[in-house]
Amino acid sequence: MIFNELISMEPILIKNALLKNKKRANIIIDGNKIVAVSNSLHKGAKRGRIIEASNKLAIPSFINAHTHAAMSLLKGYADDMPLQEWLSKKIWPIEAKLKEKDIYIGTKFACLEMLKNGITCFNDMYWYPWKAAEASAELGMRGFIGALFLSIGKSKEQAIREFKKQFKRIKAVAKNSNNLIRPTVAPHAIYTVDREILIFAAEFAAKHDVLLHMHLNETKEEVDGCIKEHNARPAEYLHKIGFLRNELSGKYIFAHGVWLNEQEAALLGKYRASVAHCPISNMKLAVGSALNFNLLVSNNINVVLGTDGNASNNSLNMFQEMKIAALLQKFYYNDPTKLNASQTFQLATYNAANAFKLKAGKVAEGYLADIILIDLNAISMVPSHNLISNLVYSAQNSVREVICNGRLLVENYKLIIEKEEKIINEARKTAERIVSNSF
Amino acid sequence: MIFNELISMEPILIKNALLKNKKRANIIIDGNKIVAVSNSLHKGAKRGRIIEASNKLAIPSFINAHTHAAMSLLKGYADDMPLQEWLSKKIWPIEAKLKEKDIYIGTKFACLEMLKNGITCFNDMYWYPWKAAEASAELGMRGFIGALFLSIGKSKEQAIREFKKQFKRIKAVAKNSNNLIRPTVAPHAIYTVDREILIFAAEFAAKHDVLLHMHLNETKEEVDGCIKEHNARPAEYLHKIGFLRNELSGKYIFAHGVWLNEQEAALLGKYRASVAHCPISNMKLAVGSALNFNLLVSNNINVVLGTDGNASNNSLNMFQEMKIAALLQKFYYNDPTKLNASQTFQLATYNAANAFKLKAGKVAEGYLADIILIDLNAISMVPSHNLISNLVYSAQNSVREVICNGRLLVENYKLIIEKEEKIINEARKTAERIVSNSF
Repeated sequence: MIFNELISMEPILIKNALLKNKKRANIIIDGNKIVAVSNSLHKGAKRGRIIEASNKLAIPSFINAHTHAAMSLLKGYADDMPLQEWLSKKIWPIEAKLKEKDIYIGTKFACLEMLKNGITCFNDMYWYPWKAAEASAELGMRGFIGALFLSIGKSKEQAIREFKKQFKRIKAVAKNSNNLIRPTVAPHAIYTVDREILIFAAEFAAKHDVLLHMHLNETKEEVDGCIKEHNARPAEYLHKIGFLRNELSGKYIFAHGVWLNEQEAALLGKYRASVAHCPISNMKLAVGSALNFNLLVSNNINVVLGTDGNASNNSLNMFQEMKIAALLQKFYYNDPTKLNASQTFQLATYNAANAFKLKAGKVAEGYLADIILIDLNAISMVPSHNLISNLVYSAQNSVREVICNGRLLVENYKLIIEKEEKIINEARKTAERIVSNSF
Repeated sequence: MIFNELISMEPILIKNALLKNKKRANIIIDGNKIVAVSNSLHKGAKRGRIIEASNKLAIPSFINAHTHAAMSLLKGYADDMPLQEWLSKKIWPIEAKLKEKDIYIGTKFACLEMLKNGITCFNDMYWYPWKAAEASAELGMRGFIGALFLSIGKSKEQAIREFKKQFKRIKAVAKNSNNLIRPTVAPHAIYTVDREILIFAAEFAAKHDVLLHMHLNETKEEVDGCIKEHNARPAEYLHKIGFLRNELSGKYIFAHGVWLNEQEAALLGKYRASVAHCPISNMKLAVGSALNFNLLVSNNINVVLGTDGNASNNSLNMFQEMKIAALLQKFYYNDPTKLNASQTFQLATYNAANAFKLKAGKVAEGYLADIILIDLNAISMVPSHNLISNLVYSAQNSVREVICNGRLLVENYKLIIEKEEKIINEARKTAERIVSNSF
């Protein structure tokens, strides 16, 4: 398939926007890049689209570093339950019946929610991933889409065959996506993927030069189980079997990581891994510990933020995720100075861009034009004593425009490249059907 | 002063609304009450305003059980700081310069935020409280407004004189507010109000038949200080000095209560106290413990929810407060079944109505017409596997209409009784002025 207009055909001038340093600038976008951020208007300002931004704050858009987008169809379907019961009685029976089309519709609905909340890039791991890639590309959004390894009940050959099929299909979508879609290698977790498959996954990622995306150290049960079975904690086990390797340095995105201890943090830091912190999911599922942010950072781990899926959040909103990340650090470590607003904002923007090797996360010349404009007249942005505090602790309903890869996707709070109503209605119908079919 | 139209001049028919039990009904409002909730239209449906609600969910509006509304002017002014430094270096120097007009403007801005988030009643404690009462009444919102006791550095006589002046002024506003405004007696906390004043406050509340609103057991420092000074924990101290008394049973609203132990919970339960849980503020200020919800409930304490002020939150949003309350219980007590969505919803509605002796918190015949209509096409409300889960864990930007005391205040997401822009602009200007004046 071919996606239309995945970069803007015309340059964009964002006129007189406030920046987070409280200065004003004109931002000129040409192709998929920011080509100028300055007070003057001489460069390329005479043609193209003009967005008046006197009452708007221009910031980098957010990156959602861990999600299962299509689970938006299961939002609110099962909450307040113990993890194992939730999975075995509610989630897995439904997932077993999901079809390709459902993934496409569910992911599109998730992308709509993310875009309207200022997220222009997500790191996904779910069934029929090439359908997630299609949905993402059609909405002009960046998607890091995992080809999944889940080897329970499968032979090594079957697991690899299925993975390769997925990877190939994602690549086919990626090819026509103007670099919006990137495949990743996504072994689900150490307790669902066999040792040999894990090793294969690492080798495959190295050979194809792609990122690895995996759940790690989410629960105490996972750690205890790993020690029992492999006589090592999860990150140590990954090291021992050769899953962590030098040629993949900087290419690991581990979701959760709340139970990492000092030795494990040192190991992951050595391979310049990123950890996608998902505080809302962690609290909702009661994983029993909070991310040790200081330990991870002091070991050179790149901490980023993720929402996890909508079934365990139940929102895809980086403003909420930032706020709760900051609150949880303060509360858990009994210190209100922990994870301040500036640090928190970096997790969702600049740190995340580094994790995904994107020149993004800053509104600056030469960076990707992944930008959101925040309405400075929104109640949450008034007063403006501290713009970053407002973004982290107050902001909501304030994302007025969204630009990804140089293309305007949301204008005046509305998605403009497809009909929101259609996406919402299809998601509603599909969600009702899959639930009614499952019993 | 006289407030215009504090109840609707015309009946309202909310047509074909979804209720949270998933049934549909027509809701007829006459005066300030719900006079019918039924499938038929025979009663009073022929005159008045009609609100089409086929795509809307009708639920009781929220009650914010603890706030300092005018602190919205200080939103984002100082975050990520230790409590004492925050108060002494940032908050108190500004507060010392606040004028009556500032409180009026700040409270109005806070009321706007609350109304748009579906809150129609708040329990306030702050300076120049009669100005908060005016702001609240003008916007048609219920305000429980505290006449403040803060006796540090004052003689008993002076503290009482100032309190009485405040109480009288709030009452004057209340008189013309068609029962929207109610004065409360608000001794700030045990560590800021002398023993004799506390006793006077309780006697005064009993004599005038009004509620008592007070901070209690917020921090460990407060508990340790009380033990040191009075050889008793805070609630025990209140009991010992006769602040807790039978004729005030059911009339206490204690904010926070995170450090209440078993003996204290039993004591407060005996006097049928309400505790206003403020999880966001507790986490942000790192108070070191989470509310022991089960302990309080098993002692017959009525738990409700509050946002605290915007300087320590930094939102006035009961959806956020519900979500974080539920997340915090699950996380802290390591059990995902704790504080489920239904229970959480009750804290912000029905329980709160009980705390304030309002026949509200239900969409049912004979109840106050304090109702919000939720947009069922909002992304956060789709799919609708579980409406209450969606309200607690997902909902945001979904409050389409707000009715308080039978009067429509917000229509199609916009405040209709005053200009939002004017309220926002005045708040911005005032906030800038008070900060620039203070150094």
